[in-house]
Amino acid sequence: MSDYGSKRRHYRGVLTVYGRKPVLEALADPGLACERLHLASSNRRDPILTRILDLAAERGVETRGHSREALARISRNGRQDQGVALDIRCPHFAELGEGLAALAARPATRLLALDGVTNPQNAGMAIRSARAGDIDGILYADRGNPALGPLVIKGSAGTLYGAPLLRCGTVAEGAAACRDAGYTVYTLAAGAPLNLFTAPLAPKTLFVLGGESDGVSPAVQALATEALSVPMAEGVESLNVAVTAALVAYAAKLRGG
Amino acid sequence: MSDYGSKRRHYRGVLTVYGRKPVLEALADPGLACERLHLASSNRRDPILTRILDLAAERGVETRGHSREALARISRNGRQDQGVALDIRCPHFAELGEGLAALAARPATRLLALDGVTNPQNAGMAIRSARAGDIDGILYADRGNPALGPLVIKGSAGTLYGAPLLRCGTVAEGAAACRDAGYTVYTLAAGAPLNLFTAPLAPKTLFVLGGESDGVSPAVQALATEALSVPMAEGVESLNVAVTAALVAYAAKLRGG
Repeated sequence: MSDYGSKRRHYRGVLTVYGRKPVLEALADPGLACERLHLASSNRRDPILTRILDLAAERGVETRGHSREALARISRNGRQDQGVALDIRCPHFAELGEGLAALAARPATRLLALDGVTNPQNAGMAIRSARAGDIDGILYADRGNPALGPLVIKGSAGTLYGAPLLRCGTVAEGAAACRDAGYTVYTLAAGAPLNLFTAPLAPKTLFVLGGESDGVSPAVQALATEALSVPMAEGVESLNVAVTAALVAYAAKLRGG
Repeated sequence: MSDYGSKRRHYRGVLTVYGRKPVLEALADPGLACERLHLASSNRRDPILTRILDLAAERGVETRGHSREALARISRNGRQDQGVALDIRCPHFAELGEGLAALAARPATRLLALDGVTNPQNAGMAIRSARAGDIDGILYADRGNPALGPLVIKGSAGTLYGAPLLRCGTVAEGAAACRDAGYTVYTLAAGAPLNLFTAPLAPKTLFVLGGESDGVSPAVQALATEALSVPMAEGVESLNVAVTAALVAYAAKLRGG
């Protein structure tokens, strides 16, 4: 494997958290695999930074100094990183292709993708719900999904770190790769004729949930085989995307499966 | 019926919206029964206020002027009302006792209460989910539930106006009234032995969901017969309350209750 491929694989399994409070909280959580602490050389000592350095030393986390500009490239958010970033290894993050290969032998697999969901707290809540309901993988795109920052982590109530994130370039690329790997692509759409709770579903499914305003994008729509709907009482036109994610994730249990 | 009782009954069926943008949006929605527009006499004309007055005139909505202080008593939020409030008749709001009486003849009834849920957007989202999933009534307390203001309306995506809100003093009083009316009170609690999706449930049920940090209060806990849990995958300790509300609403609906 090329050095580039190996670096890319490494990067795909790492979540870089930034900001003093989030970094401190992560270092204080013994369940997280903290790999490397990045600090801006311009940082002034304060009680939180001292505590961060103490915890990193206690845990044996490697610490590196950077220029302010280099740190901003690592955190990808120079305006909010407060000169601190932390690489956390997330054991269930994977490049989509490798994730699909690892899942190939299973007889039934349920994946979830969010298409055009721009609110990071909703994305985080959807991840939390999907994890709770035993979704096997959550497609997460570099372009088209909210950056994996503090608001997604907060929305996920910290469950993001352990989530099976299958990382891809765009949602459409990811959905196409799933289809090529034998998955049936279902979109969720209000008013679609097939009922999520009663329609027969393929054993390998990708459920795509659209954004609150624009729904599923045409590029992803073109890859879908069927549209499913959640039946709703009169007077209600749609559901929050994180709520829909929960119903999709728990649909098997709600069906009595 | 006494004049007091009649006033109270009237008040229980009315939602008072405040702030210029929310009032404008409500007046522009032909589906809403706008009853009375309240304005502070100190208001200066601006384009939004002009539009509000035009819409009220077009729709034949009675308009009343008040002192700034009197308007603050009507809106119950003088800091954010911007001198404008609008009474909207919500056809499915009721005093709890009357609501229970109206539901008494049904063979199966499913009610929902939120106990200690302080985030108004979560409360609104839970109302939206409960309505979508055909919950027959949502207990809503004057003390213990977030004020029915703009954030609840926003969280509910406007579904609050048509929601079957059963209004009571406190959640514990409401739960006690339900129990006295023959309802079985179930709390939702992580790790409870009974599974929401498979446990046999009484035909008349009140599901109580606790707040995100403290769960169900001891006073309500004491009224409950059983605790139900949503099964969750390892590594996830809880679900967002609006997500739990959706699973409760749809679990009941899908059981054919």
